[in-house]
Amino acid sequence: MHILITAGGTDEKIDDVRKITNQATGRLGKVIAERLQHEQVTIHYVYGPNAVLPKSPANGTLLFYPIQSVNDLYHQMEQLLTTKKIDYVIHSMAVSDYYVKNSIASEQLAHMIATQIDHHAVESLEQQIDTILKTNHFYPEQTDKKLSSDTEQLFIRLNKAPKVIQSIKKWQPATTLIGFKLLVGVSEEHLTQVALQSIQKNQADLILANDLEKINDTEHHAILVDPTGIIERFETRQDIASGLQSLIHANLA
Amino acid sequence: MHILITAGGTDEKIDDVRKITNQATGRLGKVIAERLQHEQVTIHYVYGPNAVLPKSPANGTLLFYPIQSVNDLYHQMEQLLTTKKIDYVIHSMAVSDYYVKNSIASEQLAHMIATQIDHHAVESLEQQIDTILKTNHFYPEQTDKKLSSDTEQLFIRLNKAPKVIQSIKKWQPATTLIGFKLLVGVSEEHLTQVALQSIQKNQADLILANDLEKINDTEHHAILVDPTGIIERFETRQDIASGLQSLIHANLA
Repeated sequence: MHILITAGGTDEKIDDVRKITNQATGRLGKVIAERLQHEQVTIHYVYGPNAVLPKSPANGTLLFYPIQSVNDLYHQMEQLLTTKKIDYVIHSMAVSDYYVKNSIASEQLAHMIATQIDHHAVESLEQQIDTILKTNHFYPEQTDKKLSSDTEQLFIRLNKAPKVIQSIKKWQPATTLIGFKLLVGVSEEHLTQVALQSIQKNQADLILANDLEKINDTEHHAILVDPTGIIERFETRQDIASGLQSLIHANLA
Repeated sequence: MHILITAGGTDEKIDDVRKITNQATGRLGKVIAERLQHEQVTIHYVYGPNAVLPKSPANGTLLFYPIQSVNDLYHQMEQLLTTKKIDYVIHSMAVSDYYVKNSIASEQLAHMIATQIDHHAVESLEQQIDTILKTNHFYPEQTDKKLSSDTEQLFIRLNKAPKVIQSIKKWQPATTLIGFKLLVGVSEEHLTQVALQSIQKNQADLILANDLEKINDTEHHAILVDPTGIIERFETRQDIASGLQSLIHANLA
């Protein structure tokens, strides 16, 4: 049996020095991988920068695939899912929704908008400006390896990245997809609703939904949701790993 | 003798999950602190998230001050430099030039600009738009704990942060300030020019200037610049630490 686990977060480069990243530590993916090593499985472990890594296995096989950005992740996942039979995808990575397109000083942005506007078409001003903001060739080329810090106000322009989770079942329709959803400071009811929407939108089989405010060094509260609603509640990373192991073990037997 | 070392990088929060950070590891600050512990000194070690930390000292005293953002750093440095006599400041931290003001979808930004423009004053359009971009109260309040990922294009608006290095001599004029300058892919001549400008602008006594393309796991090429030009060249972090130790040791004797 082959299991693909993603863990940690992604880094989106602003320049050679600066980056946008997230709080993900990879601790949950590590615990899940270490638990699943007790089964006779091959784990493909795709992880982001700074993720803590699982220990090498006693049984089974653990293969590592490091990635940096959401675009790296997309290509790595496509490669794995279109060339290997993967029974389970446990997609715990905190993936950036956006990648960095470019950066622009407020003065440059103002100049760009002012020089592109057609003053005679005032009734469509908002539409015009939105088009200007979205059109790549209006922007100055980003040539510096490190952004200047001369400008008082800077805009970093982000574009939506391809949704990796939405592509998984397209690449491999027969795999079982366990997605993850992280929200901050919401009710269990809201978390469940968002998990159900995620199942629909991403053709996921299960969603492990959690709230950043209920995660710390020792605890990790989470709910496991299938199309019918909550099927299990967890309080620690070890609980979550055991729950997923049981699911997979039942399928192995 | 009291020495203040800053090390690692800063994190600027975009929301509760996302942040802007940099590549700094804190390795150089760690090596410098460990070397200086052989002297009878008290080290005040101000460090950012993810920085590797120096080992606890055999001699002397090592006090830790964790910070997150550039604004945290500013207040921590102000507190230390206005209340304690600090003989040397070794400011190796990679400090963000900007902090995150807010985030806005391109549609919202277009709407905001379009509704604020005075169409009759077309000759000052660029100036008007720049004013709109820079004025805080035109922006929608950022209330979500986690940004929505619904929009196709997002702008993160950054404002210039207070320059910590420029405040050090204002807080404590008699301290010896060793600043650091990191560039990417430049000539030694250019690096020296930028270091000399930094000495002037920041009232630094010395600048350790380095190039990201000449730093790896084992090597760390750098030049030490005083107002007369390059006074020493280094090839490793151990070299740099020894050079700074010699400087400080000569002053102790």
